[in-house]
Amino acid sequence: MVERYDSRPIGVFDSGVGGLTVFKAIARRFPAESLVYLGDTARVPYGSKSARTVERYTLQVGAFLLRRGVKGVVVACNTASALGLDALRAHCAVPSLGVIEPGCRMALESSPGGRIGVIGTRSTIASRAYPSALMRANPRVHVVCAPCPLFGPLVEEGWTRHPATRLVVSETLAPLRRESMDTLILGCTHYPLLKEIIQEVMGPEIRLIDSAAAVARELDRHLGHDILPAPPGHARTLDFLVTDVADRFQDVARLFLEEIPVVQVSVVDL
Amino acid sequence: MVERYDSRPIGVFDSGVGGLTVFKAIARRFPAESLVYLGDTARVPYGSKSARTVERYTLQVGAFLLRRGVKGVVVACNTASALGLDALRAHCAVPSLGVIEPGCRMALESSPGGRIGVIGTRSTIASRAYPSALMRANPRVHVVCAPCPLFGPLVEEGWTRHPATRLVVSETLAPLRRESMDTLILGCTHYPLLKEIIQEVMGPEIRLIDSAAAVARELDRHLGHDILPAPPGHARTLDFLVTDVADRFQDVARLFLEEIPVVQVSVVDL
Repeated sequence: MVERYDSRPIGVFDSGVGGLTVFKAIARRFPAESLVYLGDTARVPYGSKSARTVERYTLQVGAFLLRRGVKGVVVACNTASALGLDALRAHCAVPSLGVIEPGCRMALESSPGGRIGVIGTRSTIASRAYPSALMRANPRVHVVCAPCPLFGPLVEEGWTRHPATRLVVSETLAPLRRESMDTLILGCTHYPLLKEIIQEVMGPEIRLIDSAAAVARELDRHLGHDILPAPPGHARTLDFLVTDVADRFQDVARLFLEEIPVVQVSVVDL
Repeated sequence: MVERYDSRPIGVFDSGVGGLTVFKAIARRFPAESLVYLGDTARVPYGSKSARTVERYTLQVGAFLLRRGVKGVVVACNTASALGLDALRAHCAVPSLGVIEPGCRMALESSPGGRIGVIGTRSTIASRAYPSALMRANPRVHVVCAPCPLFGPLVEEGWTRHPATRLVVSETLAPLRRESMDTLILGCTHYPLLKEIIQEVMGPEIRLIDSAAAVARELDRHLGHDILPAPPGHARTLDFLVTDVADRFQDVARLFLEEIPVVQVSVVDL
């Protein structure tokens, strides 16, 4: 059997900085793969915008990443996955993965009683992408969704342990607590940073599903199949692109990425 | 003396819905003037974006309003006023007004001791547009500024009286309380909706300056000078344009506009 390789980068796309949690999981799991991160910070957030607009933005970013020569696209943003992935797959010449299907698969595997809660931005929840994917996989699953529009801004400001954040989380998640879920999908890349408060509010027995790990696992299935892997030991590159202001991005990126180095951030026009 | 009139509309521009407070003040004060509101909801918020990006967006909106045949442009958004107004004035064939100079003038008039606080988005505060304008008018004024990046999201979600909001307001305004200001400029169109909590946190003796009234008064100075007024009794039109989703806009608009009718909202591409 002939081994075939492809040293081109994989594109990872998010509306802002949140997708860096996904970027980190992929960078750790695949040390030979070059990656290009694209944060659409000039138009962030997507979560309060319409399906039509999010789809349009997703296609623009996809076309941009293709021009950069990526061999596959990971849509790290839940809202773009919910509203733009189908269009991206129809128009994009390379394979693309979203966060929703992998997150649902992981939730179904770990849910003991099939009572799954989903939290996300207003647009992600309105799209019904999560309940549709869950029920396609298991029609008997019980799903309850709650939009959490204030979580993102609180995380972006670093208020991850503040009493005000605890109040917001507690009030926003009250409907899910009443429905006694056993598993909760964190359907927005920002929410893992609120994991502690969410766990406290929901109770210790609830399982929290973070899509970053789920997507990295899913990418593993693609590499060697519809996406060729980088040659073993390939000296990879990690590029960071944003559509607006690189300075604050760099600080926040360091927080999100831990040991992964942020060498240079470039501002690009789509 | 010949009376000269111009029945073309005045454009009022904001990044989202907040500018409707300015729109309402103008609509009430000038009942014969046609108005076109443009909310750039596809790219909202501006307050966390760079100077370069906000200037670019402001010029695009200005060019769009000119094509709609406006006789003047009111930039109701504080961030766009701080970062885009100079460029707009340089490129725009009709007079344009921002909210910062009128707000500063009103603050200086009402401040007994010249100790003025300014709150706004991160970008508005970083621009130093308010302290520059205040100190140009009165070099002996004492100015303290505080960015309040969470106030906008809380207002957009309708959490205007919530205990979590009180905690956020109290902690964010602590530096201003320590400096014993006598006047506080609400340098973002959303903040008047938090007036009660802000007044409570800052104390009853502090004077709150809301730019909506200040801009309407400023427009009065322009009408009949560099902007011709509509003929008396003119059957005016009020148009509402947004760059994304009209449905949620309509609900929020009713809240902001009170008796002003929102007949139809159109989605436009810039």
